[in-house]
Amino acid sequence: MTLLVQKYGGTSVGTVERIKNVAARIKGCREQGQDIVVVLSAMSGETNRLLRLSNEITTRPIPRELDVLLSTGEQVTIALLCMALHEQGCEARSYTGAQVHIRTDSAFNKARILEIDEQKVRSDIAQGRVVVVAGFQGVDQGGNITTLGRGGSDTTAVALAAALKAEECQIYTDVDGVYTTDPRVVPQARRLERITFEEMLEMASLGSKVLQIRAVEFASKYDVPLRVLSSFEEGEGTLITEEEQQDMERAVISGIAFNRDEAKLTILGVPDQPGVAHQIVGPIGNANIELDMIIQNVGADGTTDFTFTVHRSDYQKALDILRKLADDLGAREVEGDDKIAKISLVGVGMRSHAGIASTMFRALAEEGINIRMISTSEIKISVVVDDKYLELGVRALHSAFQLE
Amino acid sequence: MTLLVQKYGGTSVGTVERIKNVAARIKGCREQGQDIVVVLSAMSGETNRLLRLSNEITTRPIPRELDVLLSTGEQVTIALLCMALHEQGCEARSYTGAQVHIRTDSAFNKARILEIDEQKVRSDIAQGRVVVVAGFQGVDQGGNITTLGRGGSDTTAVALAAALKAEECQIYTDVDGVYTTDPRVVPQARRLERITFEEMLEMASLGSKVLQIRAVEFASKYDVPLRVLSSFEEGEGTLITEEEQQDMERAVISGIAFNRDEAKLTILGVPDQPGVAHQIVGPIGNANIELDMIIQNVGADGTTDFTFTVHRSDYQKALDILRKLADDLGAREVEGDDKIAKISLVGVGMRSHAGIASTMFRALAEEGINIRMISTSEIKISVVVDDKYLELGVRALHSAFQLE
Repeated sequence: MTLLVQKYGGTSVGTVERIKNVAARIKGCREQGQDIVVVLSAMSGETNRLLRLSNEITTRPIPRELDVLLSTGEQVTIALLCMALHEQGCEARSYTGAQVHIRTDSAFNKARILEIDEQKVRSDIAQGRVVVVAGFQGVDQGGNITTLGRGGSDTTAVALAAALKAEECQIYTDVDGVYTTDPRVVPQARRLERITFEEMLEMASLGSKVLQIRAVEFASKYDVPLRVLSSFEEGEGTLITEEEQQDMERAVISGIAFNRDEAKLTILGVPDQPGVAHQIVGPIGNANIELDMIIQNVGADGTTDFTFTVHRSDYQKALDILRKLADDLGAREVEGDDKIAKISLVGVGMRSHAGIASTMFRALAEEGINIRMISTSEIKISVVVDDKYLELGVRALHSAFQLE
Repeated sequence: MTLLVQKYGGTSVGTVERIKNVAARIKGCREQGQDIVVVLSAMSGETNRLLRLSNEITTRPIPRELDVLLSTGEQVTIALLCMALHEQGCEARSYTGAQVHIRTDSAFNKARILEIDEQKVRSDIAQGRVVVVAGFQGVDQGGNITTLGRGGSDTTAVALAAALKAEECQIYTDVDGVYTTDPRVVPQARRLERITFEEMLEMASLGSKVLQIRAVEFASKYDVPLRVLSSFEEGEGTLITEEEQQDMERAVISGIAFNRDEAKLTILGVPDQPGVAHQIVGPIGNANIELDMIIQNVGADGTTDFTFTVHRSDYQKALDILRKLADDLGAREVEGDDKIAKISLVGVGMRSHAGIASTMFRALAEEGINIRMISTSEIKISVVVDDKYLELGVRALHSAFQLE
């Protein structure tokens, strides 16, 4: 028997009708002789409804109680799906995170899974049951309910697949796979049949919101094959696995990710001495602002220019901090721009192919797009451009690398 | 320190505003030096919302999964109340039934509490916290979530009060106490300061829906003083305790209960032989119809007449069963009437006072109300009358026994 872990997201279980459809799909898998463990999110909108209730009471809810509140969302869907499965003649049993011993640390609202006791699940499977587990939640050493943070259901699914040594962890969502880029920007964007964990991580962290980063990291660490599929239509989706060495013919570039919600800040003419990067980054981090790209260039006169990007909503806060710092550091000037966008080429093939960067820069130049920042990693090249050029740039690159 | 267990029903926590009010009330108790354990119901309407979801999927939900679903309602309110308490500077911690080990049997949807491990609660109280427990729910030996059935939150509160040996178990609701009868029928109805467990049981089972019967039984068994109070206004409410022998001056009659939702059925001329009552009652019980009053009279010619009342919604079903039975038993005739109402006088004083029955029957006769059935117990006299006479009868009795 093949064992599959299937995760259905909030839109896939957003209505009673859709929950029935999910049950029918699972029944189909059972009839093909597959053992199924299901991980569910809350019905779409439910988590926001609960957050609204909490917001009406306090703007700073106690983290422990927020998790008690939010974890009810998944508990509702697991019960409803089990009812729907029974209605279709499919034996099923639901478990909350605590019931199936998804042990986490005690970092409420963003807990990490430490271990899973898969005993109960195995025993139910052996008795021919579909096992339906609440995603997103766990329980700490002290028996307190924890949640893994938004999108944590993907992580639950991968962790269960790893613990059960499942054939595949299938993530059912409202898109039918991972695309070369966002089809809303490039209509010719193409679904990828396969992609590596590394590429998926770069795609995900750059704003392709198909999968949660932690889930991909987890899958990579435990070598769990991940598949992204649509819960609304049939199809093979996209399989995410370890890189296969024999796959010589694979495309150089897998896809193009982009992110519009960025802002960039530069502190110019900082006296160049050891520790200066830390002196700049430290206060930003202390203010809970996440940095994305970081670039430092040494100038001619013993000073250095330091540039980084942050989420656009943190722009003003970061600018204020930087202006204060500039005096202390004896910097010349602080500059900022919150009308930028980032475009990234991603592909493991990049490692062995020269000339990617030059093709990229030429394609952008031909469209008259000025590059404001460049940053590279082993399987990624990112550029920052004025945000009005985002769509144009993505389309130009999609065509230049023949991703259609 | 006085330890109180306070239970707030669905209307008392029906909105965020009301939850904040409950928090303020609890804070007031804390400031008076009281230790507080709170038991909550789901927000009013929430259980019905969840049942609607379940109904859209199946008309016969698996009992285990129904409990997984329904138990989320209380989990939401305990989290919200803890947030509200913190917001007011009151340390608090929430527990689901499973977390605080409210161990029940495995009768899903109508489980019975077996034991409570009060360790965690005591430890939190010792640390100055308000403990907020989800009512209505528990956990069985196998770790499955169970619920106690509608109104089970009262039972949770009493069970906790018994386990913790609390001073009082206070049931906050939308009425300010137990009345001599329903004030909507008799405007002169008066709030009772005290009432005995026995009287309350008779009042509750006869349709005064203030407290759940099981909770009163539980409180009586473990001798937990119960107090019914309004969560919307100040007041002493009604205290429900063991009968106090020295209380010689107490009224003969405590109150008048009534029930409009009944129907009566009679099987006439049944050959009178051993086992006949069982032959009649058995099939009715097997059809899951609950019997209320049962009366049997022996006739002159070796036959007997057997009458009972059922909930009006079961009338037709019971009638069909009885008609089938009549042939088998060689009965003469089956009669039924679903336009009846029951009125009951309740009072422990009745035991030592003669003449209650005659005063009752005279008062009804003076209003021209015909009595169709009579049934008595040690502390109760019930009569069945045509339902159009219900209000008239209740008012006449309220006045005849000077309950104003």
